Amino acid sequence: MSSIKPQTLKGFRDFLPIEARKRQYVINALKSVFESYGFEPLETPSLEYEEILLGKYGEEGDKLMYRFEDKGKRKVALRYDQTVPLARVVAQYQNEIPMPFKRYQIQNVWRAENTQKGRFREFLQCDIDTVGQNSGVADAEIIVIVADSLEKLGFSAKGGSASGGKNFKIRIGDRKLFQDIPPSAITIIDKLAKIGEEKVIAELKEKSLDEKILDKLKNAKPSEDIELILGIAQEMGVADKVYFDPTLARGLDYYTGMILEVEIDGYSAGSVCGGGRYDNLIGLFANKQIPAVGFAFGFDRLMEAMDELNLFPKDLTTTKVLVTVMSMELGRNSIEIADLLRKNGINAELWLDSDSKMEKQLKYADKKQIPYVIIIGEKEASKNLITLRNMKTREQKTISLKEVIAKLAD
Amino acid sequence: MSSIKPQTLKGFRDFLPIEARKRQYVINALKSVFESYGFEPLETPSLEYEEILLGKYGEEGDKLMYRFEDKGKRKVALRYDQTVPLARVVAQYQNEIPMPFKRYQIQNVWRAENTQKGRFREFLQCDIDTVGQNSGVADAEIIVIVADSLEKLGFSAKGGSASGGKNFKIRIGDRKLFQDIPPSAITIIDKLAKIGEEKVIAELKEKSLDEKILDKLKNAKPSEDIELILGIAQEMGVADKVYFDPTLARGLDYYTGMILEVEIDGYSAGSVCGGGRYDNLIGLFANKQIPAVGFAFGFDRLMEAMDELNLFPKDLTTTKVLVTVMSMELGRNSIEIADLLRKNGINAELWLDSDSKMEKQLKYADKKQIPYVIIIGEKEASKNLITLRNMKTREQKTISLKEVIAKLAD
Repeated sequence: MSSIKPQTLKGFRDFLPIEARKRQYVINALKSVFESYGFEPLETPSLEYEEILLGKYGEEGDKLMYRFEDKGKRKVALRYDQTVPLARVVAQYQNEIPMPFKRYQIQNVWRAENTQKGRFREFLQCDIDTVGQNSGVADAEIIVIVADSLEKLGFSAKGGSASGGKNFKIRIGDRKLFQDIPPSAITIIDKLAKIGEEKVIAELKEKSLDEKILDKLKNAKPSEDIELILGIAQEMGVADKVYFDPTLARGLDYYTGMILEVEIDGYSAGSVCGGGRYDNLIGLFANKQIPAVGFAFGFDRLMEAMDELNLFPKDLTTTKVLVTVMSMELGRNSIEIADLLRKNGINAELWLDSDSKMEKQLKYADKKQIPYVIIIGEKEASKNLITLRNMKTREQKTISLKEVIAKLAD
Repeated sequence: MSSIKPQTLKGFRDFLPIEARKRQYVINALKSVFESYGFEPLETPSLEYEEILLGKYGEEGDKLMYRFEDKGKRKVALRYDQTVPLARVVAQYQNEIPMPFKRYQIQNVWRAENTQKGRFREFLQCDIDTVGQNSGVADAEIIVIVADSLEKLGFSAKGGSASGGKNFKIRIGDRKLFQDIPPSAITIIDKLAKIGEEKVIAELKEKSLDEKILDKLKNAKPSEDIELILGIAQEMGVADKVYFDPTLARGLDYYTGMILEVEIDGYSAGSVCGGGRYDNLIGLFANKQIPAVGFAFGFDRLMEAMDELNLFPKDLTTTKVLVTVMSMELGRNSIEIADLLRKNGINAELWLDSDSKMEKQLKYADKKQIPYVIIIGEKEASKNLITLRNMKTREQKTISLKEVIAKLAD
């Protein structure tokens, strides 16, 4: 038969059920927060005309983009981010889309990244943007949604050691403070949190840049716009989760106003999300200025931080109980019980053959992390009872179906 | 600025919120059924080594596959279906995966199809498979899940005209009956439902094939295996939704036993799903035989059938209420009310500026299909009351926050 090695491409991943469930958990949590603020889903194609994407992400972006010629000789490219497709959608459906357009998008993007740094070539992005609204309320709302999302996932906004190191803080910056600073200096200042003040000043000197820039920035006051946004965010109840940091630069140069990043105590791999106001990008294909503000969660970093801080619920399995099968004759009982459990809203997996040892069936339940197992032997069947086994405590009880349902339904 | 035309590639689609919500509704319904039987999610990469996929789908498949060379000169291809990746996963993680492996997979696949027939080049597939189990209970369970899924989506299994033409039936066939029939004849017989008996016989004659094949097939009895499967399916409660049809062939030649297709009254575009037992494919990369049975929903056809038969709930919007803003001064009240509604589990969108006319805000709610609008004017604010407007009936009532919450929470 085949001698092809079963393997995935470097930077591409399979998600087996245990991992896929965790991803689903995070996605569902984020969606529920986004939707509670009136944001709605948008999906765009994986492939776009190359010219739609090309030149929008700088030289680096063009280099990392997956591009090829399709069978119709069209030059196509795989989605590189979700912002440029959003700009295309806004132009293409101008008359259909209600403005402001509040949309979230949770899809994969592809980048031919160097995979050595734990970066991936296919990864999920979770974006949320408000398009067509330049009021500071829109900016403040984005800040609040970031905070709500993180709290929903179990990060703490309480501060102090009581929260066991799960604290997060949202750093708010003002891109306008960087208007007169040369790009080469911004790149260096952007590394402040990573390399520290001393090294930043050294690098500025090395590049013959004004080393006083950093000091000036550090003492800069937020602009009126930012003051307003911070005031509204405070009214919206996130005061203690937010602080103004005039040195926050953010790498991307398309931001035009408020910018934000998240810091998580005990997770040092970097910001799990970032965003801000960008008023000159979304109108790109519509040939007019369309204001926008939003942010993107780095899904993999978020998952990593949650793993490290132990924020995933212990029991994410979707299957509540395995209904085992003792023998061919008793199989019918198992089928019936599984069916009745499902009709009562309990996810019940039926063992599918009648000649497996009970030990094998219990091992299977263990491996799938199914919390309960039902055993129906001859004794049980004759008395119309069921043995329910708790897989963690290994306790077994022989009880009625009604009691089983009550037990498993909670 | 840019003069690039905002457009999507032929065969690729944007899903704006109203459409995206409908897709989400169907996906969630299918997932909940799959999970109720103990199936778990699997995700595989969009790109695979070309050699993993190539040659597995016949000449046609190789022709329709999106293939290219990546930056590392690796020959890669976009996922063409979810069955070959499943076979790879089963081989690659043999020691990790619990057997039987009951997994569902809901991801996009890409095919460079002729788009004229309403076919798409990127489309969602919903697959469910039980791997590593050859018991007929596994086959029967798949039949039951198909029935449950369709009922969950609003199709009726009752039969008769009472259901208003939303009936479905599951046709069960036996691929073993085709063992001695030449492939060219199978291709013709496969068209029976579409072109009728007369034309099938004429085509068989034309190709100098035994025209009696059809008659022989029509009178064929199900094998013992199929009898057993039908018996178990009956015990599982789907007797009235299933019938045996010995002429059912299914195009794909990898099936080895039970095969199934779905028929929906009033939807003639073809089967919305199909599947069966295929015991020789999953072991492909593991170099051993691994039995499997499963099916795949054609997501687009399913959506189309549901649209035509009016099976989507009227109100799929996720936003329950728009909290309007009357003026800068009253904005604070609106912010507070929106916040309180969310804290009570009600998805509440806040209007984001304070200088829009009420008419504009109401139009926006209409366009987004938001069922309720809240208005807080000076009068309301002074009395600590809220005006709640039902966007469908246009009724307005001025009531307390408590009453609003009670009203919107149901």
